[in-house]
Amino acid sequence: MHQLPPGYKLRRVNSSDFDAVIKTLQVLTTVGDVSQAKFDEILEYWEQTRITIKGNQVPAYNMFVITDDADRAVATGTVLIEKKIIHCGGLVGHIEDIAVSRDQQGKSLGRMMIEHLTTYAHDLGCYKVILDCSDENVGFYKRCGYLKAGVEMSHRL
Amino acid sequence: MHQLPPGYKLRRVNSSDFDAVIKTLQVLTTVGDVSQAKFDEILEYWEQTRITIKGNQVPAYNMFVITDDADRAVATGTVLIEKKIIHCGGLVGHIEDIAVSRDQQGKSLGRMMIEHLTTYAHDLGCYKVILDCSDENVGFYKRCGYLKAGVEMSHRL
Repeated sequence: MHQLPPGYKLRRVNSSDFDAVIKTLQVLTTVGDVSQAKFDEILEYWEQTRITIKGNQVPAYNMFVITDDADRAVATGTVLIEKKIIHCGGLVGHIEDIAVSRDQQGKSLGRMMIEHLTTYAHDLGCYKVILDCSDENVGFYKRCGYLKAGVEMSHRL
Repeated sequence: MHQLPPGYKLRRVNSSDFDAVIKTLQVLTTVGDVSQAKFDEILEYWEQTRITIKGNQVPAYNMFVITDDADRAVATGTVLIEKKIIHCGGLVGHIEDIAVSRDQQGKSLGRMMIEHLTTYAHDLGCYKVILDCSDENVGFYKRCGYLKAGVEMSHRL
């Protein structure tokens, strides 16, 4: 089993994570012009977007961060819960935007984030949790218990 | 360009599509125990789950059906709009659960559904539209303008 380094925590994202989250996400892709106000607006939208599961209204968007011993977010990950008709009106978890700061590699933070999001989604009742990755990352996700399920196709204008 | 057969229409799903939608989705996978009441509850949840785009509150879930000349749903498809932090707080469209009744194959209904959902999502401002498919369907989605972007990984209990 993997364990967070001393002083590190895994928790839901909040407004005070703005700087560190933006910096961490830049490892992944272009973040672009996102101000503190825009960040807060997105977190507020995520918080308000609810899904009723077993009588409880829970957030459909679930972004978590791993913070270091200075409470700085150094890893991020989100699981979005989708409500379907198929599989008896089943739920599917979509894992999105997994990022780990470059100076924090080798501590298994990505692995712990994936395991947390996967368990979180299954605990909510998701019959499956899916994600898209590059060919190079297939081995990593297999070690996290994932199996190849298909091909991701993308359309951009 | 593809055209719907005479009398066929593409429109948003509604409660009266219950029987035909369930039957169409069975082409894809197990639908299981979904009553008219449960179906209506899901459509209601989808309708209420909104996202603010350019000041307008629009549904995040967008299920469309193609109906035949007897107004029977014979093809289905959904695009779910996800709000991200990356790409300037960008939007991504997730295409899900494309199904065409077995007795309606060869009429390009799947293709017209994909083109509609893709345009719909881009018109809302999505910087990309993604979907997962099997190896056999890659050629079909390439003809719809999609490119291979990655590998879908899945975790089931």
